Amino acid sequence: MQEIKTMEFKDNTLRLIDQRKLPLALEIFICRTHADVHFAIKEMVVRGAPAIGAAAAYGGVLAAVEFLSESKNFYSAMKKALTFLNSARPTAVNLMWAVNKMGNLLEDHKNLPPHDIYLKMKEAADKIFAEDLWVNKEMGKYGNEVVGQKAVILTHCNTGALATTGYGTALGVIRTAFYSGKDIFVYADETRPRLQGAKLTAWELVREGIPAKLIVDSAAATLIRDGKIDLILVGADRIASNGDTANKIGTFMLSVLAKEYGVPFYVVAPTSTIDFDLARGQEIDIEERQAEEISHLEGTRLAPVGIEVYNPAFDVTPWENITGIITEKGIIRPPFRENILKLHRN
Amino acid sequence: MQEIKTMEFKDNTLRLIDQRKLPLALEIFICRTHADVHFAIKEMVVRGAPAIGAAAAYGGVLAAVEFLSESKNFYSAMKKALTFLNSARPTAVNLMWAVNKMGNLLEDHKNLPPHDIYLKMKEAADKIFAEDLWVNKEMGKYGNEVVGQKAVILTHCNTGALATTGYGTALGVIRTAFYSGKDIFVYADETRPRLQGAKLTAWELVREGIPAKLIVDSAAATLIRDGKIDLILVGADRIASNGDTANKIGTFMLSVLAKEYGVPFYVVAPTSTIDFDLARGQEIDIEERQAEEISHLEGTRLAPVGIEVYNPAFDVTPWENITGIITEKGIIRPPFRENILKLHRN
Repeated sequence: MQEIKTMEFKDNTLRLIDQRKLPLALEIFICRTHADVHFAIKEMVVRGAPAIGAAAAYGGVLAAVEFLSESKNFYSAMKKALTFLNSARPTAVNLMWAVNKMGNLLEDHKNLPPHDIYLKMKEAADKIFAEDLWVNKEMGKYGNEVVGQKAVILTHCNTGALATTGYGTALGVIRTAFYSGKDIFVYADETRPRLQGAKLTAWELVREGIPAKLIVDSAAATLIRDGKIDLILVGADRIASNGDTANKIGTFMLSVLAKEYGVPFYVVAPTSTIDFDLARGQEIDIEERQAEEISHLEGTRLAPVGIEVYNPAFDVTPWENITGIITEKGIIRPPFRENILKLHRN
Repeated sequence: MQEIKTMEFKDNTLRLIDQRKLPLALEIFICRTHADVHFAIKEMVVRGAPAIGAAAAYGGVLAAVEFLSESKNFYSAMKKALTFLNSARPTAVNLMWAVNKMGNLLEDHKNLPPHDIYLKMKEAADKIFAEDLWVNKEMGKYGNEVVGQKAVILTHCNTGALATTGYGTALGVIRTAFYSGKDIFVYADETRPRLQGAKLTAWELVREGIPAKLIVDSAAATLIRDGKIDLILVGADRIASNGDTANKIGTFMLSVLAKEYGVPFYVVAPTSTIDFDLARGQEIDIEERQAEEISHLEGTRLAPVGIEVYNPAFDVTPWENITGIITEKGIIRPPFRENILKLHRN
């Protein structure tokens, strides 16, 4: 396996694969300060909810390094730094969660010397990093159980090493299946508008040597109808307690076709993606992003001046269209509300 | 109405809107020879099956002008010129049909002086041009009957003035509805991979002042589910005698969603698009186009080196998903096989 080091914390620097440059160049973006990490998240040097969370945690560690010598002002400087980190992107739940974790450490140990707090933060960030990797590999194992010996798998967006601290969620299952010796084939949706499939998933697949073809999103429909897809694996940004799943725009379309033509449709996501307080998908706010993601590409205008654009970043797949949710604790199957509640109680 | 002169034959030159330059620039490409027309079709200065047909007919006229003085070699020079025109693109049925029409005129009148043949060809080309325009406006009238007073219409690809000799098929119905005073709103799919929706349909909509928004193809799914679309209007490249319809990739996906959520789905196409000899859609060959349409954009690489691409240009929508076929002779409704046969017999 070609290990992809989406991020690495080394010698008090956070080294990130610069995802803005992929797939044309593999460059490392080095963060030496928490402001560098803020920039990297905001400008999408690093993206993917779990990856953003881990990067932000290390951003807190870098802030602690920066302010080590300011023993008097350490607490207030750190508070300010964490607030700044948290403002990098508005909607990533993992960003808020990781920054809060660092903030709680700061509060709980405010009377300790800065260096001790730094050590505790470093330990916590390493744990976030390592746990994400572990969770992905567990999902890979459970997910592999539903992948046939010669499965043709359709996937959407990038759910790979690049979206996590390594390995991936849906693409992690694909990795596990491939390295367990299965003769799989992958169709990767290009995933408009940001083309994470064409740019990032395709890059990971080529790098690993996993046989694959890239398609436009709408071409998936005929493949599904014609029985050329054995199963569909997608990620998730937020799962309601009834199983309704918000994920990258285009996921819902696939789910309708999967249901119509009897193709198994699995969501691959850690249990931390489940929002137990959310009754159903309709309650999930769908972020609408800027028009330029559709009207322009890499700074070049495609659409005419004057055309309005509607650009929802996500859509919601109803639980009825989902065969199962592959988590690090096993595969959740219908009835989802009941089985998710059971999971929550344990 | 802002008339869009996709093509104009004037002073023995064929003037084409250069569709490679839209929407950023409105430039006229002037064809003075049949070789210029061959280039324009091959390089997609002009595209859309009806537009290609009319342009090719005028290409024959230009050849006649070129060889007027060669009274001895006129016939053989014309034969060669028509064969060259026909080779510009491999699959457009209208191209072959229009060139054959010119070829038949040449055969039928081979003993007349070149100038008389030129006049006959000019008359025939003008008729092809005018008939397409007339057919589009008839479809507009019939189609307008199914458009509500405040209809929100979803459309795919470019089926407008630019795809025909003017006015359009599905977009022609939208034009008629708008100019009949209806308070319509259009969602235009960008239509990957060639982005005819973003580049051409959006340009026509902005020019006419028809209220519209551009979306990525997969975003249509949620709009359809949420009841935000009143009807779907698409064009057709080939219709089998049972109603199965080949059209731009992405059409089939829309039809499945339309059926699932009870949204009327109309195909708008002249009866000349119906292939009465074809029993069903499965018999239609689907052209697979070059990988670069997906892996690159405007010459810039998007996807990594080494990724394979599957790029079907069309898909087939089964008759079961179609509410009606809007033609210049009225709206064909199910049972399609029976009603198409009736039309054929008349």
